[in-house]
Amino acid sequence: MHTFQQLVQEFETQITTRNVFPERPNNLYEPCRYLIALKGKRVRPVACLMAAELFAPIPSCTWDAAIAIELFHNFTLIHDDIMDKAPLRRGFPTIHAKYGLTAGILGGDAMSIFAYQSLSNVENNFRKVLNLFNKTAIEVCEGQQMDMDFENRTNVTIEEYIEMIQLKTSVLLAASMEIGALTAFAPEEDCKWIYEFGKNLGIAFQLQDDYLDSFGNTEKIGKQIGGDILANKKTYLYLHALQNANSVQKEQLAQWLQKEDYVAQDKINAIKEIFTHTHADQACREAVNHYSQKSFESLMQLNVPEPKKEPLMLLAKELLNREQ
Amino acid sequence: MHTFQQLVQEFETQITTRNVFPERPNNLYEPCRYLIALKGKRVRPVACLMAAELFAPIPSCTWDAAIAIELFHNFTLIHDDIMDKAPLRRGFPTIHAKYGLTAGILGGDAMSIFAYQSLSNVENNFRKVLNLFNKTAIEVCEGQQMDMDFENRTNVTIEEYIEMIQLKTSVLLAASMEIGALTAFAPEEDCKWIYEFGKNLGIAFQLQDDYLDSFGNTEKIGKQIGGDILANKKTYLYLHALQNANSVQKEQLAQWLQKEDYVAQDKINAIKEIFTHTHADQACREAVNHYSQKSFESLMQLNVPEPKKEPLMLLAKELLNREQ
Repeated sequence: MHTFQQLVQEFETQITTRNVFPERPNNLYEPCRYLIALKGKRVRPVACLMAAELFAPIPSCTWDAAIAIELFHNFTLIHDDIMDKAPLRRGFPTIHAKYGLTAGILGGDAMSIFAYQSLSNVENNFRKVLNLFNKTAIEVCEGQQMDMDFENRTNVTIEEYIEMIQLKTSVLLAASMEIGALTAFAPEEDCKWIYEFGKNLGIAFQLQDDYLDSFGNTEKIGKQIGGDILANKKTYLYLHALQNANSVQKEQLAQWLQKEDYVAQDKINAIKEIFTHTHADQACREAVNHYSQKSFESLMQLNVPEPKKEPLMLLAKELLNREQ
Repeated sequence: MHTFQQLVQEFETQITTRNVFPERPNNLYEPCRYLIALKGKRVRPVACLMAAELFAPIPSCTWDAAIAIELFHNFTLIHDDIMDKAPLRRGFPTIHAKYGLTAGILGGDAMSIFAYQSLSNVENNFRKVLNLFNKTAIEVCEGQQMDMDFENRTNVTIEEYIEMIQLKTSVLLAASMEIGALTAFAPEEDCKWIYEFGKNLGIAFQLQDDYLDSFGNTEKIGKQIGGDILANKKTYLYLHALQNANSVQKEQLAQWLQKEDYVAQDKINAIKEIFTHTHADQACREAVNHYSQKSFESLMQLNVPEPKKEPLMLLAKELLNREQ
């Protein structure tokens, strides 16, 4: 059994030595190399590898799947950052901010195709792996669209919001794990449980991300605090606050949403105060706990010896305690 | 044997009845449906089907490959149109012009994933098909990047230009045909010849496209005349003109390239006049003939009875005579 750190380290070695991106044309591949070199947490590929190791020594083609998943994830980040007009990613300029719109669009496109190319090296259960990958990729696009749509809607429910983050974020973590399990020829039922584990963990993780975007710490999370607030994102915090706001607070929320000229920090402070007064921060943490609990229950259902589950359990705990 | 028209008609039926795109989220899929409904010539999917029919009655999974190819092609059009700031496609507003940047980026992404999903239904020679598809998809991105890079370079050679259009345009036509042949279990050598046929035909077609962009007719080709000129594209016409221009004409070309304030039609007229005086128009038509000839020679090498080659021969002639 490997630890998270061991797998991250080996993953870095693999993705570096494989030279995924050719030298030329440089304007296409330099942005791709730039983003991959910024690393990120590598949660999805490592989760894929850990899921495989529940069932067998990690097959060599699981690494191809893990790299495919990380490339796909980075592709979505590049394009999402354009759509979200995000200036920073992992504490550094986003690709479109650094290299321009064309580099962002085309670099993302190339990254997604290299993801498929890496996936094509998978031997074990390849059809199942590919079908799950495709299904998930489509769901991720649909989740991103819902997220965009929510910005222009005033009647988003918390239920719809959970559906959106499930599609946009958590199905990819879930699929990463099931794909890992498939490459290790896991029994069908265990594949489903590991998917459920990843899905609920992903939802818990995203809800915590919402929390940290308002109540976290720039240095630790590597992006601007209050980004969601400035982008008028209908996060869990916002939706809960709106549901529980008194008439004065409702009016304040509405006014801040419409305002076009303001000092960014003023808007962030005002909205955070409403979050706190409506106990949205507390509710968000409770929701994190609810989905964490569900994910741990799925992990318990897995028909493998308990000690083997230890790395995934630690991964989950690590993810969910990064800043609390 | 089927004719081009029969296959186009059956292709429309197939792509329509399969309902490739789900109903929701509508903001994601409406732009995709819009573009696919504008049809276009369907050259690539039909070429794929024709290539299969050289070797066997068209296998049912060739249709999945043909749809994948058309979806992939449309995905590249959507993103290229954003990068090229093109207002029209097939005589109608481009997706980003009609629905906005987000719809263009995300709709294109979804389209590319649906391409892979359709391709995943291919049974015959699937690994070979998928590998060729991936290789081609990457080449198309690289070709697009070279095209973008050329806009900012003053020393592009005609050789580099041919390499660029080969990657950006012709490898997809070539791969469409080889994929069709692979799904019909064609012999390896014939797969290579059909690829060469498609590649050279694609180059001839693109060179003719350059010609028509300046010397064609808006109504017939469904896009703005002089678009390449206004975008300062280093087309075959431009590169040949630059090579053969006298000092006065060179100066005029350089001035038009730098000018920022001008009446579009003035620039188009002036540059077209230089094209004509340097015989770039004639040279371009000769290059079209050269690559057409090469493509017909590849077709002759194919080890199938001559009458079976008739539909592909007609397709090529149709493509290369659309406006002359």
